[in-house]
Amino acid sequence: MTDIPKGWIHREGMGLLTDLYELTMMAGYFKEGMGDRQACFEYFFRSLPPETGFAVTAGLDSFLDYLSNLRFTKEDIDHLRSVGLFEDSFLDFLRDFRPSCTVSAIPEGTLVFPNEPIVQVEGDLIEVQLLETALLNFLNYSTLIASKAARICQAANGDPVMEFGLRRAHGPDGGVSGSRAAYIGGCSATSNVLAGRLFDLPVSGTHAHSWVMSYDSELESFRTLAKQFPNNCIFLVDTYDTLVSGVPNAIQVFREMREEGLDFRPAIRLDSGDLSKLSKSAHRMLVEAGFKDPLIVASGDLDENLIADLKRQGAKINSWGVGTKLITAWDSPSFNGVYKLVAVQNGPDWEPRIKISSNIAKTTDPGRKRVIRYYNSSDEPIGDVLYDSGEEIPWRGSIIGRERTHLDLPAKIDGAARGERLLEEVFVDGVRTRSPKSARDLRQRVSDQIQSMPEEYKRLRNPEIYPVLLSRNLVKLKGSLLAAEIR
Amino acid sequence: MTDIPKGWIHREGMGLLTDLYELTMMAGYFKEGMGDRQACFEYFFRSLPPETGFAVTAGLDSFLDYLSNLRFTKEDIDHLRSVGLFEDSFLDFLRDFRPSCTVSAIPEGTLVFPNEPIVQVEGDLIEVQLLETALLNFLNYSTLIASKAARICQAANGDPVMEFGLRRAHGPDGGVSGSRAAYIGGCSATSNVLAGRLFDLPVSGTHAHSWVMSYDSELESFRTLAKQFPNNCIFLVDTYDTLVSGVPNAIQVFREMREEGLDFRPAIRLDSGDLSKLSKSAHRMLVEAGFKDPLIVASGDLDENLIADLKRQGAKINSWGVGTKLITAWDSPSFNGVYKLVAVQNGPDWEPRIKISSNIAKTTDPGRKRVIRYYNSSDEPIGDVLYDSGEEIPWRGSIIGRERTHLDLPAKIDGAARGERLLEEVFVDGVRTRSPKSARDLRQRVSDQIQSMPEEYKRLRNPEIYPVLLSRNLVKLKGSLLAAEIR
Repeated sequence: MTDIPKGWIHREGMGLLTDLYELTMMAGYFKEGMGDRQACFEYFFRSLPPETGFAVTAGLDSFLDYLSNLRFTKEDIDHLRSVGLFEDSFLDFLRDFRPSCTVSAIPEGTLVFPNEPIVQVEGDLIEVQLLETALLNFLNYSTLIASKAARICQAANGDPVMEFGLRRAHGPDGGVSGSRAAYIGGCSATSNVLAGRLFDLPVSGTHAHSWVMSYDSELESFRTLAKQFPNNCIFLVDTYDTLVSGVPNAIQVFREMREEGLDFRPAIRLDSGDLSKLSKSAHRMLVEAGFKDPLIVASGDLDENLIADLKRQGAKINSWGVGTKLITAWDSPSFNGVYKLVAVQNGPDWEPRIKISSNIAKTTDPGRKRVIRYYNSSDEPIGDVLYDSGEEIPWRGSIIGRERTHLDLPAKIDGAARGERLLEEVFVDGVRTRSPKSARDLRQRVSDQIQSMPEEYKRLRNPEIYPVLLSRNLVKLKGSLLAAEIR
Repeated sequence: MTDIPKGWIHREGMGLLTDLYELTMMAGYFKEGMGDRQACFEYFFRSLPPETGFAVTAGLDSFLDYLSNLRFTKEDIDHLRSVGLFEDSFLDFLRDFRPSCTVSAIPEGTLVFPNEPIVQVEGDLIEVQLLETALLNFLNYSTLIASKAARICQAANGDPVMEFGLRRAHGPDGGVSGSRAAYIGGCSATSNVLAGRLFDLPVSGTHAHSWVMSYDSELESFRTLAKQFPNNCIFLVDTYDTLVSGVPNAIQVFREMREEGLDFRPAIRLDSGDLSKLSKSAHRMLVEAGFKDPLIVASGDLDENLIADLKRQGAKINSWGVGTKLITAWDSPSFNGVYKLVAVQNGPDWEPRIKISSNIAKTTDPGRKRVIRYYNSSDEPIGDVLYDSGEEIPWRGSIIGRERTHLDLPAKIDGAARGERLLEEVFVDGVRTRSPKSARDLRQRVSDQIQSMPEEYKRLRNPEIYPVLLSRNLVKLKGSLLAAEIR
């Protein structure tokens, strides 16, 4: 980790990684003398991907790395001058800009639900406006992939899942950041060597069809691989004909390895054809040849649904290589997180703000919030409640609130044995205050949380909706802002 | 473009941007003394995204930039040593590695079709194997987005389409590379300031809801924007209530601007609600207030299908801001390009190689190929033919070939007035031989090609399939390899 910066994308000049409108709004606030008005924005998402019971937060570390290094270089300033929209005094401000905001966040690797503030940014309006685009970019993508990986690993039900997506990822960083997120979400390893180096992830791989095609025969190609990597050879058996040629040639080489007295686990990979039938036939052939516990890796357009269905059919597969559909989150390839203004300074006080929509679900929840997760006496999460910042928080018993789209109907969470604050300060007055956790620790954190989550939220189809309530104070606040005249 | 490298992702250490199996195969070839055997790989894709008549190539420049700078740093080598799979002699080879291959490619910004070689890489087996993952990563993503942008721009039918996707892109580079590809595919501008700087793209933007919410009233927020950016103010009118509050407040400020004698085009943006109804009502209100030719920008979950349908309903929208569904290619978020070995050196000759599949469409076309595009006397493309490298190429008249999945049925392209070689050498013996074209030139190239393409291939639903034939020699070659025994 010496010559490649941790963020690996160039750290300087990241000030321009933003939408133009953030800069024009900043220029507007600057000219109006409103730049240092204190504002609070919250990052949250409105809905989960289809059929998904929870999301797994990721991407915070990349965002904080970006934030810590956020500057506008001379070349950035020259470029902005050439755009022709900005006055010199604003460009001078950008040249001297250093972040000074405060960020609270739900830590990476936490299970989260719609409408909870995951990141809360407070500071000068001109600064916290700028951060919107980059924050959304970092958090949305990594959370998308960590959440998808968690689903896929649940379908694999304890079998290792290897992430093989680099070639189909959205650019180099889509691959690298995506590998990290997939690992946090539960994958066992990645094929991506650079991600392995940057984030200390286990790497794994087999070989390509081209390996086989480079030799005069499939048998010779397997034999060579076995000779060179006796402890790491997984034969890809579908270059010509899986059961007629690939598996018999693999068995032949395994026999030769056994005769040599090598200590190895016989392993093959299936990458095409009917994975259920082929795996059963290949398994039978291997067992009949005396290889009792073969590793059979499957790959090729896998996702959680196909893995679950192959398992249902009794496919003899015990390791899964997942590429495209994981690294792109194929069936819902973006995470709909948004970053909304929830309060602005008004004299000594914070004044809550709301964004109204004709769709009540899209009307924002105003105010700087706290998020408390409640657990029952078995230490299972039973519901989360959002509180207004100054409000007194109950820690056990029956917790009263309302659903955010049914402000008139009482709702409650029963049997709380303890509550946990989910948001923690991670960046204070421009300085990062917590050191990042390793990907391995984050993966363990996710695994522990999934373990303790009741099964109804973990179903891959039609999971129950985990309760997220608004506190009484927040309900009152939202109601009063909704009732107020349209300005 | 001084402090940010053109590739903007760190250039050093890109050797590790690869799947582990490329490195283990390389180590295998190295140990067998096969590393310098000459091999030819081709990059092609098997099928187009759903309902799509053509793809637009992009990403070659990024790949060639990567290739030109491809090295393994000392830290890379140390890392690989720590993985424990590689011998010192191979690591020494990597330390001294410099690319020496030759690359031919169909230029960026070309309309292409399934099974055509888009990039052809020839060189030492050990080197051309390494390139697989990165080549696929760069080409697949940019081609995906350029192709999607072309569809969206066709639906917009000449209206400007602005790419607003950075916040939903797959990481920072997903946004930056994606903006470039979207522009090449036909977008008019991007919101992404960094992409604008790196690739000299027009940037544009309006303002966010937070701008309105930061002021005590919507009217005040619009007035301030007008004062500051009189030539660049597009009022976002849906923060509270589009027709009751947003549009009337916008009209009020347009009137004030008119009274001040400012020269401006009244412009609003709709970001929610029924875009057809709201645009018609807003347009009527603006026209009745004397603003005859308003710019009405729409945004919010747009894609080519929704744009086409809004146009069908007569929506009064003349500019489109497209984010998520463009930058993620939402309905088919990866491009299925593959990189396959087609020939290896055998003594002085090239020996063609084939990858067989039980699915005839997935069986590869062997041999180092040439791609000729034929045009009729109106200079419209009428079909492409793949030829074997040494084969004589006919340039006009009736061009005989076969469809690749029906090798026994004759097929032909009639009325060819001229033919054009699509592959050109871009990197020879390790050195880049053509300077990259600007994004503006590439966008123009795409636009010209789409213009000349017959309408049957440009339909957004169920387009005709553009003919891509195999030459007689290739058919013979493929037939003989298929007939040969499974090895």
